[in-house]
Amino acid sequence: MHVGFLGLGAIGAPMAARLARRGPLTVWNRTAARATEFVARHGGVAAPSARDAAAADVVITCLSTSADVAALLEGPDGILAGLRPGALFLDCTSGDPATSRAIAARLAERGVAFADAPVSGGTNGAEAGTLTVMVGGSAEAFARARPVLAAFGARIEHVGPVGAGDALKAVNNALLAVNILAVAEGLAALMKAGVAPRTALDVVNASSGRSFVSEVLVPERVLTGAWPRTFRLALLDKDVGIATRLLGQTGVPGPVLELTSALLRAARAELGEAADYLDPIRISERHAGVELRG
Amino acid sequence: MHVGFLGLGAIGAPMAARLARRGPLTVWNRTAARATEFVARHGGVAAPSARDAAAADVVITCLSTSADVAALLEGPDGILAGLRPGALFLDCTSGDPATSRAIAARLAERGVAFADAPVSGGTNGAEAGTLTVMVGGSAEAFARARPVLAAFGARIEHVGPVGAGDALKAVNNALLAVNILAVAEGLAALMKAGVAPRTALDVVNASSGRSFVSEVLVPERVLTGAWPRTFRLALLDKDVGIATRLLGQTGVPGPVLELTSALLRAARAELGEAADYLDPIRISERHAGVELRG
Amino acid sequence: MHVGFLGLGAIGAPMAARLARRGPLTVWNRTAARATEFVARHGGVAAPSARDAAAADVVITCLSTSADVAALLEGPDGILAGLRPGALFLDCTSGDPATSRAIAARLAERGVAFADAPVSGGTNGAEAGTLTVMVGGSAEAFARARPVLAAFGARIEHVGPVGAGDALKAVNNALLAVNILAVAEGLAALMKAGVAPRTALDVVNASSGRSFVSEVLVPERVLTGAWPRTFRLALLDKDVGIATRLLGQTGVPGPVLELTSALLRAARAELGEAADYLDPIRISERHAGVELRG
Amino acid sequence: MHVGFLGLGAIGAPMAARLARRGPLTVWNRTAARATEFVARHGGVAAPSARDAAAADVVITCLSTSADVAALLEGPDGILAGLRPGALFLDCTSGDPATSRAIAARLAERGVAFADAPVSGGTNGAEAGTLTVMVGGSAEAFARARPVLAAFGARIEHVGPVGAGDALKAVNNALLAVNILAVAEGLAALMKAGVAPRTALDVVNASSGRSFVSEVLVPERVLTGAWPRTFRLALLDKDVGIATRLLGQTGVPGPVLELTSALLRAARAELGEAADYLDPIRISERHAGVELRG
Repeated sequence: MHVGFLGLGAIGAPMAARLARRGPLTVWNRTAARATEFVARHGGVAAPSARDAAAADVVITCLSTSADVAALLEGPDGILAGLRPGALFLDCTSGDPATSRAIAARLAERGVAFADAPVSGGTNGAEAGTLTVMVGGSAEAFARARPVLAAFGARIEHVGPVGAGDALKAVNNALLAVNILAVAEGLAALMKAGVAPRTALDVVNASSGRSFVSEVLVPERVLTGAWPRTFRLALLDKDVGIATRLLGQTGVPGPVLELTSALLRAARAELGEAADYLDPIRISERHAGVELRG
Repeated sequence: MHVGFLGLGAIGAPMAARLARRGPLTVWNRTAARATEFVARHGGVAAPSARDAAAADVVITCLSTSADVAALLEGPDGILAGLRPGALFLDCTSGDPATSRAIAARLAERGVAFADAPVSGGTNGAEAGTLTVMVGGSAEAFARARPVLAAFGARIEHVGPVGAGDALKAVNNALLAVNILAVAEGLAALMKAGVAPRTALDVVNASSGRSFVSEVLVPERVLTGAWPRTFRLALLDKDVGIATRLLGQTGVPGPVLELTSALLRAARAELGEAADYLDPIRISERHAGVELRG
Repeated sequence: MHVGFLGLGAIGAPMAARLARRGPLTVWNRTAARATEFVARHGGVAAPSARDAAAADVVITCLSTSADVAALLEGPDGILAGLRPGALFLDCTSGDPATSRAIAARLAERGVAFADAPVSGGTNGAEAGTLTVMVGGSAEAFARARPVLAAFGARIEHVGPVGAGDALKAVNNALLAVNILAVAEGLAALMKAGVAPRTALDVVNASSGRSFVSEVLVPERVLTGAWPRTFRLALLDKDVGIATRLLGQTGVPGPVLELTSALLRAARAELGEAADYLDPIRISERHAGVELRG
Repeated sequence: MHVGFLGLGAIGAPMAARLARRGPLTVWNRTAARATEFVARHGGVAAPSARDAAAADVVITCLSTSADVAALLEGPDGILAGLRPGALFLDCTSGDPATSRAIAARLAERGVAFADAPVSGGTNGAEAGTLTVMVGGSAEAFARARPVLAAFGARIEHVGPVGAGDALKAVNNALLAVNILAVAEGLAALMKAGVAPRTALDVVNASSGRSFVSEVLVPERVLTGAWPRTFRLALLDKDVGIATRLLGQTGVPGPVLELTSALLRAARAELGEAADYLDPIRISERHAGVELRG
């Protein structure tokens, strides 16, 4: 079974590297140098064009947005013409459900099955093969996808129809974002009231207010002053925007998530496209005139 | 060392029961029958008045609000007159920092040391002696308080000056509240998009959006349909109100926590004084026309 | 010049009635009885199908949503086939910019010019011919549209390219919605603090907090207890949703408008599809336990 | 009838100047030079101390906060000792209801009547004698206050018991603040969508979204680029904080006003204590990368 992999970014490259150990792999990346470099290190073949990479049994995309995937399909150089009837198309992009459904419909016309399969776990998880994969699609597509996704995923869940994977990834990231903002607000106020952030987190983490943000992210990355840059705020903002559009489309009121989306967009406007997703915490620090260290 | 314990509520009673095993204890409760019943089961002496209960080496209060504690101090029947110079006054109420500081100042005039010492861990934690206790006060008061608090607390933290315990408890509960609302919004939208809540939580709990709410409360209490009534929404609303006043007093902007406070107050107005703190999730269910079960 | 008018709703019918006095008019409505009744009262011709009504020099649509307009264009009975090259298509729907741009592109392929032209002023304004019309489109389309729109509009503004009329209408309605919610919150709290709502509004309206809501809507419709049903909450919710998507698409953070959108959606879920746009004020009344009358 | 006036700030000075034309006036200001200068221009007598100024039939205070008024009363140099039994104390500060009630109780012990009487209309209104005055107090106090307040007020309303004037002023300013933020969000998004801000406001002001902010403040001060500095953001933030505490105390949920309060505090933290109350509009401009001029 031949796999074509398109999109060798921070997450895509280590995912593809694990696939390269399993069988025949063709890769493609918009910046061709990354594909050449990939092949030199991990094997496989660098395709001259996206369309060539797409001539495979299973095609996997891992791009920034669903719009990027849709753009890759159409047009004179579009990969649609290169896809084989009967192929399986897995989109690991953190995409949006509506675009994924449109892509699935377009592919179905060519006899190609589609599943959205966004991942969680970061670069480390991709390298270690311990990603969580949220698959949206038919039961049949899931059954075909699972062994392929097992190359990089430890937890592979069939979460619903096409778009469900995207929806769940977006909501997860919205919950992540809520906690980033809320923990920053709370710790900043506490520090001004004389409570050290480390002490505050120790207690919160032994109580009912705890979250992944309070247990892992802030202690390891903020209190230490390390601030590693691992995931762009611009991408988190995009994901939370997908979650709020999901709220709109399903008619479910979500004041907390919608405010979070608006605040994240403000932080992005303030901090720029290169900012890390934890950098909004710096805004709370600045507003309060404190540094959450210790 | 003689302990006087005032306030035999859902948390106070099991805390006092553990103190009764350790040494001389006098208890008081506004509804006297609860004190009589307590003494019959756990021992100690029921004081005829709050003032009598306060004539002890260590006085512990566990009431609904700081205002209740302040009201107990003053007036013709106030306990202020009954306190012994040199006594230690520990307030385990989930109180507000400003009132606690005023109480501390009032007690200092009588030579009585004060620490705010709100607890976390619920009725179960109180019975098991595994509460987390957040102590605000001087180092000296903390040193005196710790062995007493050890009767019911497993984690006893000195978190800052008077009021710091209250502040930290309030922020912890605000983070709890944010997650209750945000998880409900997200799960309701996902369910309408075809993702079962159990599946959604399984994935979120293996990812970055997880919290105590997603890992414990919603799976155990909502998905099962159990909805136990363990903590009144009215009290959580009060605590989050304390957190937002803390934001105001420290001048720290907290849009997420302040919106949470407003929404919680709306839920309380909607659901009534007897509602449980997880009942706001029912509002999301109703708005979305779904039941988060499975 | 022949006009075809599609959509004889609460606003559309009086608009079309004014056009009927000016020249040849063909009308169409999904429920055909309304068209027959219209012709009996105001003249013109009832077209047997939407496509027949669209065979005119100027086609005007006035439907609930842009999606309704788009749906009318396509398909076996779609009006696209009935449109004359060189015709002018004016959409008076309170639409969304993205769909309007897609419709404009589709029409351009057939040589038909498009402008979005949503109106403000209600049924009364439509009858009196005093509507404000916000036109998005080319300068040429605007020049052609203006004399037609003058049949029912007193203020006809060219506000920008295609979609700009929709965007402006949506933002206007979002500002309307913000004031409905905020005035209700403020008046309810003041009433509980002993300030009568009429007194409060008299002062606000002589001060800097005043708005159309405080000056006109609440005094005339709420304080009197009249509560006329003139505009559905569901439609206001749709408009505010368009405004928040505009914020998202332009990357402009809008926490106040986005929260307003979320709260309006909650009110709609609570009050139902038939509720009036001022009914969210009843939620504040209920929460506060007051009636804003006087 | 002798009037003592304390607080010759931007609003207080022109108010006192109008009183000086009517009868005997003693003034006091924390920075004594302002009082000397006032007397040179407008007449009256500069008191050597606040206590001396307070020895009058009617005492008027016009300070930044209720806390400033309370601080002036007490202590070794406090004016409490200087007040005459039977005097009338009018506080024109934009104060908070709870402190005003405490002040009223304190004054009642000395036989001094109190009314809170905050004003609206700005420096211009104070100079022209056209202020709106919102009076909270007994009917008797209002009857005595009205002729005095008529020196600078054109609209003098008895709005409720002590604290009601403060409450109403705070809510008015909260409604002002909501519109400042919402109009900025909307205009910034519209400008990015190709709608000029002047055009947008022309249409909104002929429609249902209009407010004092859209009709007067933004056209005169922002679109022109004038940005006059007339009222500090820090003071508006304080007022909106009073409004949200009122919501909390009355138990009325106010998500829109509470979010507004949080965002205003963030703007203040960002822009500093000297910023003008319209400067938050600059934040929307910066986030959107536009200037609302034209």
